Amino acid sequence: MDMNQAQTLKGFRDFLPNVARKREYILNTLKKVFISYGFEPLETPTLEYEEILTGKYGDEGDKLMYRFVDNGGRKVAMRYDQTVPLARVVAQYANDLPLPFKRYQIQNVFRAENTQKGRYREFLQVDIDTVGSQSPLADAEIIQIILKCYESLGFKKIKMLINDRRNFDGISNSAIVSIDKLKKIGPDGVANELVEKGYNDNDARKLLDSLIKAPPSGKVAEVIDLVTNAGFDKSKIEFSPTLARGLDYYTGLIFEVEAEDYPYGSLGGGGRYDNLLGIFSGKEIPAVGFAVGFDRTYEAMEELGLFPTDLIKTQALVTNTNPAASEIANQLRNKGFLVELYVDDKDLEKQLKYADKKGIPYVLIFKDGKIFLKDMKSGNQKEVSEGSLPDELRR
Amino acid sequence: MDMNQAQTLKGFRDFLPNVARKREYILNTLKKVFISYGFEPLETPTLEYEEILTGKYGDEGDKLMYRFVDNGGRKVAMRYDQTVPLARVVAQYANDLPLPFKRYQIQNVFRAENTQKGRYREFLQVDIDTVGSQSPLADAEIIQIILKCYESLGFKKIKMLINDRRNFDGISNSAIVSIDKLKKIGPDGVANELVEKGYNDNDARKLLDSLIKAPPSGKVAEVIDLVTNAGFDKSKIEFSPTLARGLDYYTGLIFEVEAEDYPYGSLGGGGRYDNLLGIFSGKEIPAVGFAVGFDRTYEAMEELGLFPTDLIKTQALVTNTNPAASEIANQLRNKGFLVELYVDDKDLEKQLKYADKKGIPYVLIFKDGKIFLKDMKSGNQKEVSEGSLPDELRR
Repeated sequence: MDMNQAQTLKGFRDFLPNVARKREYILNTLKKVFISYGFEPLETPTLEYEEILTGKYGDEGDKLMYRFVDNGGRKVAMRYDQTVPLARVVAQYANDLPLPFKRYQIQNVFRAENTQKGRYREFLQVDIDTVGSQSPLADAEIIQIILKCYESLGFKKIKMLINDRRNFDGISNSAIVSIDKLKKIGPDGVANELVEKGYNDNDARKLLDSLIKAPPSGKVAEVIDLVTNAGFDKSKIEFSPTLARGLDYYTGLIFEVEAEDYPYGSLGGGGRYDNLLGIFSGKEIPAVGFAVGFDRTYEAMEELGLFPTDLIKTQALVTNTNPAASEIANQLRNKGFLVELYVDDKDLEKQLKYADKKGIPYVLIFKDGKIFLKDMKSGNQKEVSEGSLPDELRR
Repeated sequence: MDMNQAQTLKGFRDFLPNVARKREYILNTLKKVFISYGFEPLETPTLEYEEILTGKYGDEGDKLMYRFVDNGGRKVAMRYDQTVPLARVVAQYANDLPLPFKRYQIQNVFRAENTQKGRYREFLQVDIDTVGSQSPLADAEIIQIILKCYESLGFKKIKMLINDRRNFDGISNSAIVSIDKLKKIGPDGVANELVEKGYNDNDARKLLDSLIKAPPSGKVAEVIDLVTNAGFDKSKIEFSPTLARGLDYYTGLIFEVEAEDYPYGSLGGGGRYDNLLGIFSGKEIPAVGFAVGFDRTYEAMEELGLFPTDLIKTQALVTNTNPAASEIANQLRNKGFLVELYVDDKDLEKQLKYADKKGIPYVLIFKDGKIFLKDMKSGNQKEVSEGSLPDELRR
């Protein structure tokens, strides 16, 4: 790279204000729901001892992990997910964290993924987990929270798919991966893949058929009941007998959330994993959790037009055309308005162009001892008194 | 390190819920003020090409920077501050960012500092900068925002110190560093240091004296006027003729904020730096900004007892003692309450202990077909109807 060339690393992103603002809107909406269910924030460091992270994500994980030796000769690694750090926290602060521990965690993770597949190397993970309970109430609560999150974001056709990972007991991981693709490639596609993996065609179709026709397990039925009894619409939750979720650390129920009007894959997923969080504690710590697919959710919201048009942003530009401009701007702020003062030179045309380019809807202009409020959309401007300004802006 | 031992790297921190919640409170308060002045969010990646960052922070910076070679053989470095990335952004997206560009940025930075001095290796920076204007209005606005921030956080005795870095023209950087310590070590201390640095005692005292007695520069006086004319109390802003700020990249006014009732140093600082942001653009881009000392501000708030006692946290625990518990919890949430449902087993004593340990003030108990609300502080419990619950909790 040319040292004087300003560019980001491949797979890494800048978020300019218009995007950063939308990301923040999603996060604030999600956090409000998490908090309303008593979930609490947790943050862990970006760097951990390498030994904490390696060997926890399979060979693929160790390969994609950002690892290096720091200035003090320590082997360190960058956050790869938020579950292993959670396992560390649960062990390290066992005495300070009464169980069940319900936490949300919203931090970036780092994976040296192939960027040609459109993957990012730094991306935000939004996780909620309930640690320390085997009760199906915990599973049901996670489902409720996620449904509530997407409802709060404005999704109209959201659905939670649910299955029991134990339905696949006795089936190889490699076959499970194929079965999981049923929706994408259809029964023939799955059968073909299974045949490639050593099944004869008849057995493959029988296996698939038996899975599809199986009734929900007792646990699935129980959790669906718990969610609906808690006041959620039954149509929002659907038994999906071939849903498998790739990760083989799930030990019970698994979930995936999708929007029927956004047919590009699930928006997030999770499930019960009772054998993972104890790795540093030396005892079994049951857990159930969910990871919101943040980038996917953002894309879906763009696609479906779910971002509010009045996302918190500057409501008025006060032009630098009068010595009292600063004071008037502050008075409006004290009344709760979001107001920018143009701080550079006094040329009015330049200031109007600035407001236009930034999409600021109203501009305050001082001229001949009078105040004018200009509506940038219509181009109209009218004289206003200082006292009537708040009311005028509220319109 | 023993692989099975759960611990964080030295200089890195976990933030458990009670701390994370307070950090979030500070950030939300600051962001509200930033937004009210039309400042916009910006995020940049954790990793940059090494060449973007090296050579920008002096030898010390290059030494403390976390740098490594990634899996693809690229030399990369971890965010060291938010100013150099801002310079990159301003060059890279010149066409998309109308100037003046006012942005806030709140991300972690990484420095391999000596942890024995109580320094952290990963810490949050909270920066605001106005890019692309030389107007003193921009300086005055930054000062207003910071005063407003600390006022919003509840600080009663906040003061902004201000000086003009150009007052030190012709004085060596090494001497400036000593003069900057006047408040800490007194005039004799400064004179002694200057003598050690080659001044004769008489010259040292004369220099210090002339600085102390100098009137505010025209720029300082102008900006103080602008801030007071904008509605801020004159007592909140004070000319400090020996204030220097260590960094030699400042080119004009410099500021430092301190709380008179927290005598452990400044809570943040900033100033005008007109020669830095153009490094990737090849042209001069004036700027003025401020960095809130986040950890210091947090400590001061703890010390001064400024965190609200009712910081957003769970208001009631609904015990798992009735099948309708989930539904009732959801009804309360729909009315805006923050409610946790106990999801584990049904033992009531255990649930009360849990509420107590987590500091949840109210507990809902179902017994013999009745609902009881227990006040955890007084220990009193009384029967309530489902309909009266919201009103009872509001009390």
